[in-house]
Amino acid sequence: MNDLSQYAAYLENQIKNLKLDDEPRNLFDPPRYFLSLGGKRMRPILTLISGEIFNIPKEESIHAALCIELFHNFSLIHDDIMDEAPVRRGKPTVHIKWDSKTAILCGDVLFVEAFKQLAKYPDHRFPLLLKRFNETAIEVCQGQQFDMDFESLPDVSESEYIEMIRLKTSVLLGCALELGAILGNQDEEARRNLYGFGVSLGIAFQIQDDILDLYGDPELFGKQVGGDILSNKKTLLFLKAKEIALSTNDSRFDKLVQMQPANDKIEFAKTLFEEIGAKNASQQTMNAYYDQAMENLQQLEQKGLRTDTLRELAKFLLTRKL
Amino acid sequence: MNDLSQYAAYLENQIKNLKLDDEPRNLFDPPRYFLSLGGKRMRPILTLISGEIFNIPKEESIHAALCIELFHNFSLIHDDIMDEAPVRRGKPTVHIKWDSKTAILCGDVLFVEAFKQLAKYPDHRFPLLLKRFNETAIEVCQGQQFDMDFESLPDVSESEYIEMIRLKTSVLLGCALELGAILGNQDEEARRNLYGFGVSLGIAFQIQDDILDLYGDPELFGKQVGGDILSNKKTLLFLKAKEIALSTNDSRFDKLVQMQPANDKIEFAKTLFEEIGAKNASQQTMNAYYDQAMENLQQLEQKGLRTDTLRELAKFLLTRKL
Repeated sequence: MNDLSQYAAYLENQIKNLKLDDEPRNLFDPPRYFLSLGGKRMRPILTLISGEIFNIPKEESIHAALCIELFHNFSLIHDDIMDEAPVRRGKPTVHIKWDSKTAILCGDVLFVEAFKQLAKYPDHRFPLLLKRFNETAIEVCQGQQFDMDFESLPDVSESEYIEMIRLKTSVLLGCALELGAILGNQDEEARRNLYGFGVSLGIAFQIQDDILDLYGDPELFGKQVGGDILSNKKTLLFLKAKEIALSTNDSRFDKLVQMQPANDKIEFAKTLFEEIGAKNASQQTMNAYYDQAMENLQQLEQKGLRTDTLRELAKFLLTRKL
Repeated sequence: MNDLSQYAAYLENQIKNLKLDDEPRNLFDPPRYFLSLGGKRMRPILTLISGEIFNIPKEESIHAALCIELFHNFSLIHDDIMDEAPVRRGKPTVHIKWDSKTAILCGDVLFVEAFKQLAKYPDHRFPLLLKRFNETAIEVCQGQQFDMDFESLPDVSESEYIEMIRLKTSVLLGCALELGAILGNQDEEARRNLYGFGVSLGIAFQIQDDILDLYGDPELFGKQVGGDILSNKKTLLFLKAKEIALSTNDSRFDKLVQMQPANDKIEFAKTLFEEIGAKNASQQTMNAYYDQAMENLQQLEQKGLRTDTLRELAKFLLTRKL
């Protein structure tokens, strides 16, 4: 993973050196704070790797990478307000540390900063980069809205759920990779395969996250385990369990939903989902998306492109301890 | 005003025909609602007029005009959340009709839509349009933050106030005009004069708005009169009154600030600000900015450019009944 940690270090340094204005401090301190919280920087790393496949030096692809990362941070800050999330990366979210007003404007500023990064490219690269970025940005908003809508819907199908996570989290991974291909002046096929790899990887990663939320080692997972279950969140695991319970007349799922949010609810869900096969079914769906991602890589390899770093990254992201 | 109403009608039609996605409806209904509320469409009209000065047909300048209008609507929606404003253009604001989460995302969508309009221009126009638009967008955020900061500051100077309204409202008018000049492939001098005209006009207009808030005819003004006074808002009128009262040892200003928010407070302010000359001083400052705007127009005329429509618009905007 030496390569990946080098990318991460390079990015961290570039993010640290981002020039934001100074005044008013209440406008620019919050984005500085949020950017300093770290994170895996997975999305901008994808842009750098993608660029490198087409011999674009990181000094050139960095602006697209930063655009993606700034946009990602913008969307996290606004999502955290909407989801009323108190903690992000172990630290208070912006609307908690300051207030919601500050957090709204903080997100807005990072959004503009994302576009400012794109504006650094020469004329002929520009329109396609912006077009794909704009399309993705709208999709991310759509995903967030679907996610919020789902909370109050009595029923969500598995395909609706997958479409929601595709929009909310995965298209940005696809876009991160595609921007590198656009910089590399690639034809549509290469762009489509890189985009597809990112989207499928993103969906697989999100499903893994759903599984880890219940079955992860708290120390390795870095979040409270069982949060989704306590709030009856409609994750893939939950939807699979619901579907299986319905078709087998298993009343334990209804019992689970009605349980008060406490530790015994988490334990009950862990056992139930394993017993009725919901955990296994979710892992299979995750693997199917992982395979799709690998298929995209094969297509790229057949065109003579080197995809070993992407392959390595995919393995790294999807073998976190369950 | 025939010309201006034609621009307005053309714009209204273009805004009505803007294509937004359909699903999820909770994401796209709110921006449709907000865009349908109308308004003067002053900013996009400026872009169309500016383009026309350089023989850019409205079918070409419309994308820049819509970009400006969409951005303006984005910023109004987010500002309304932050300012907890219940009503905009006589109708419930988005966060009231729906909720704050919806309004945050609604603004975000309109922001992306603004960039999508810019993306319609050919390569060589693109970078400068985006650069100036990005710079302006950040300034508008700065203005909003200064405005919020001022609420809790004990003291704000007149120049700080003018800088705040320059950023919060006026630079967007300047930018609206400058985008037309960029489309017209103009040199920096013409761009600077158009931008300067817009900024000065915007400041004059905002000062007029401050004065009208207290002295306007409620029916013509379209808002509740005296709202600023009831909340001790630091408008130019208020700051001028404070300064004069301080230098003349007039205790009535302190009395005003301490009065409960009721009708007699408004009447007291009207009389006081007139008697001590704060109203007159504010009008003089407004006129000075108006004169600066006219100065910019003269410079443009000396280059042989036709500025009669802009002159007409400025007169129209700044002679609303006091």
